[in-house]
Amino acid sequence: MRTLARDLAANVQHEATLSGWVHRIRELGAISFVLLRDRSGIVQLVYDGKTDLSVESVIEVSGTVQRNDKAPGGFELSVRDTRILARAEQDLPLPVNQEPDNLGLDAILDHRFTSLRIPRIRMIFTLQSAILRYFAEYLRSEDFTEIKSSKLIGTGTEGGTGLFSVEYFENRVFLAQSPQFYKQAMVASGMERVFEIGAAYRAEKHDTPRHLNEYVSLDVEMAFIESEQELMDLEVNILKHICSGVARDHQDILDAWHAEVPNAEQLDHIPRISHDEAKEIISTRLGHRVFEINPEGERELCDWAREKHGIDAAFVNAFPRKKRPFYAYPDGQKTMSFDLLFRGLEITTGGRRINEYPMMLETLPKFGLTPEGLADYLQIFRFGCPPHGGFAIGLERITQKLLGLQNVKEASLFPRDRKRIRP
Amino acid sequence: MRTLARDLAANVQHEATLSGWVHRIRELGAISFVLLRDRSGIVQLVYDGKTDLSVESVIEVSGTVQRNDKAPGGFELSVRDTRILARAEQDLPLPVNQEPDNLGLDAILDHRFTSLRIPRIRMIFTLQSAILRYFAEYLRSEDFTEIKSSKLIGTGTEGGTGLFSVEYFENRVFLAQSPQFYKQAMVASGMERVFEIGAAYRAEKHDTPRHLNEYVSLDVEMAFIESEQELMDLEVNILKHICSGVARDHQDILDAWHAEVPNAEQLDHIPRISHDEAKEIISTRLGHRVFEINPEGERELCDWAREKHGIDAAFVNAFPRKKRPFYAYPDGQKTMSFDLLFRGLEITTGGRRINEYPMMLETLPKFGLTPEGLADYLQIFRFGCPPHGGFAIGLERITQKLLGLQNVKEASLFPRDRKRIRP
Repeated sequence: MRTLARDLAANVQHEATLSGWVHRIRELGAISFVLLRDRSGIVQLVYDGKTDLSVESVIEVSGTVQRNDKAPGGFELSVRDTRILARAEQDLPLPVNQEPDNLGLDAILDHRFTSLRIPRIRMIFTLQSAILRYFAEYLRSEDFTEIKSSKLIGTGTEGGTGLFSVEYFENRVFLAQSPQFYKQAMVASGMERVFEIGAAYRAEKHDTPRHLNEYVSLDVEMAFIESEQELMDLEVNILKHICSGVARDHQDILDAWHAEVPNAEQLDHIPRISHDEAKEIISTRLGHRVFEINPEGERELCDWAREKHGIDAAFVNAFPRKKRPFYAYPDGQKTMSFDLLFRGLEITTGGRRINEYPMMLETLPKFGLTPEGLADYLQIFRFGCPPHGGFAIGLERITQKLLGLQNVKEASLFPRDRKRIRP
Repeated sequence: MRTLARDLAANVQHEATLSGWVHRIRELGAISFVLLRDRSGIVQLVYDGKTDLSVESVIEVSGTVQRNDKAPGGFELSVRDTRILARAEQDLPLPVNQEPDNLGLDAILDHRFTSLRIPRIRMIFTLQSAILRYFAEYLRSEDFTEIKSSKLIGTGTEGGTGLFSVEYFENRVFLAQSPQFYKQAMVASGMERVFEIGAAYRAEKHDTPRHLNEYVSLDVEMAFIESEQELMDLEVNILKHICSGVARDHQDILDAWHAEVPNAEQLDHIPRISHDEAKEIISTRLGHRVFEINPEGERELCDWAREKHGIDAAFVNAFPRKKRPFYAYPDGQKTMSFDLLFRGLEITTGGRRINEYPMMLETLPKFGLTPEGLADYLQIFRFGCPPHGGFAIGLERITQKLLGLQNVKEASLFPRDRKRIRP
């Protein structure tokens, strides 16, 4: 029966068998200390004399659990038997048992299978797993249904630019940028409330700390809304559930990254400002007139929100029509759309969508689109589509921002960018 | 404040507002009955005289809730006000308010955005959402971490055949057939227990009721196992959690499809038979010697298991080496691998993997592979990889078999096959 590192305390003065990786070896002559790492933590092993172990080898050890205030966690194992399950070679491309602060991003990503052995790096993905759980958990509690749509599509939601093409038997298809059309179809089918967790692809040549060419999109779509206000309400509730879950279950990860998550009260205070107001605020702070909200502006706006509203986040809504896709629901010259900026980065785009068929037909030509080119999509609206809208949260971006990572690629297990296609 | 169809009983003699789709209209001269469909069910509306509604239009209605034993669910709404939110055109490509028994598969899939409005068809995906939930729920309770790996890869896990190629900037990459290498990497990194829910791609030209070119793979991988036996134990536990959840939460869907799920006792009795024994059993039943387990054999074996063990399912293990990928852990001339057949169909393939580096190096040439071609992959084993294994369940296949659907494509929202790339 295997005992995990975290359960050692319950076995003091008893025999125990542990398995894991050799994290560190310290040989002091008459005695050796070995740190053993398993999925639950790190435990100290005590050997008489020298060991023939190597760092990262996988072993199974048996012995007696002893109290020792100097050992990590306060307990250690006096080893009687050791079985080597897999011996590690000695030329690790990077050190696994040190803090990764001195490792460059390229080293971390080029040797990804090794860098993920570093506990603090692996923690990023333990947190990401928890975010996936809380996201789905909250939406299910609100009667949302999880869907899985195809990622192989005939054309893009926003035209043909920025798409990767796939040789598909005798055809050419594209990798989906978003499940937009599919989640709208499911809302209109009568499911009303859907979410999807899936890959999204952008064939953009940017190489910035904010972009990935393949990312995980947390998509939500719901029927019977009046405007984007209900969507922002929903997103605040999702964020509350995620942040309270992280604070409750993963304080160790936050501590390791010197990170904090906003509390419920702070999240309730995220300001909602129009695109026009946002530009005013940014212009005032920067001392010159801005006409777009660029990355610098996003950071300024979040700084303003932190100073004024106590949270480093802001909803921006009422974007002009020409800044949003054709399906954004019009409101005069503006649209019922929004972005959420969090800690200086856009992590969400969303809005109410056009649902009336006549309005859709009237809109297409204004964007250079034809009904023929969108024949499948129009079926959604011809046969009764309720008022609806939705949004998407970038999984890697929210992970990055919750932990304070420098680059979004650190929050992707196996990131893909223009040059990176391995491992 | 909106009331859902399922909450009508709580509002008898009170005012209520409902929203949804016009499911059916029956005009009797002095009075009209309209069935209104929302995400929770169907409710009868009563109008004086005729209505100007059309089937599938989306409406909001207010009125008084009345008890009526003849109405579906025992309650109805006497309508005072009706607001048409989106009027449906009258040329629906297929009837939405009838049972879909007479619809052919092509009609259902060609008009997918419409066929999903048929309640019994939409239920397939409500069930699928629940399967996703139970799968993740069970694994999380057993300390598994959810991962998201890249679907854009340099080469396939089983060589370059059967892969779709993607134009990726200046490179050519492929759509992943499986997250196999990535989940092994995460196990070896120290996460020990991981699962992934993600798309998988097979560029095979088959067009059968069992195959999809894009499907959702429910992947599991765990460390510190001795053989495939622990993996079969785990899969039985997952299936118990899924089946008990379905029986508890979705009896209405099972009823609509005249379906039953196995209970825990039945699942405990799934026989585990070797590949050799399986061929014997099939040969005996068919009256001629078989050398492979083909689809007919899979059905025979499940029939045998039902007659002999009371469950329409069988684990087959101890496959010969040449029938499994290079990474299958050898056991003499056999491998520690298994399939699960359920109701006549293979829904899972899995097994223990080679974890020792020397064994891996010795194995590669036997399969015509070189260490250089798998350099990234070998990093997993060079630096200490615990004994481990895993398996994958096809989401569409398990959905199909739980409901008794004829074709796996019915269990995919937007299936892709050789000719089908829309909607």
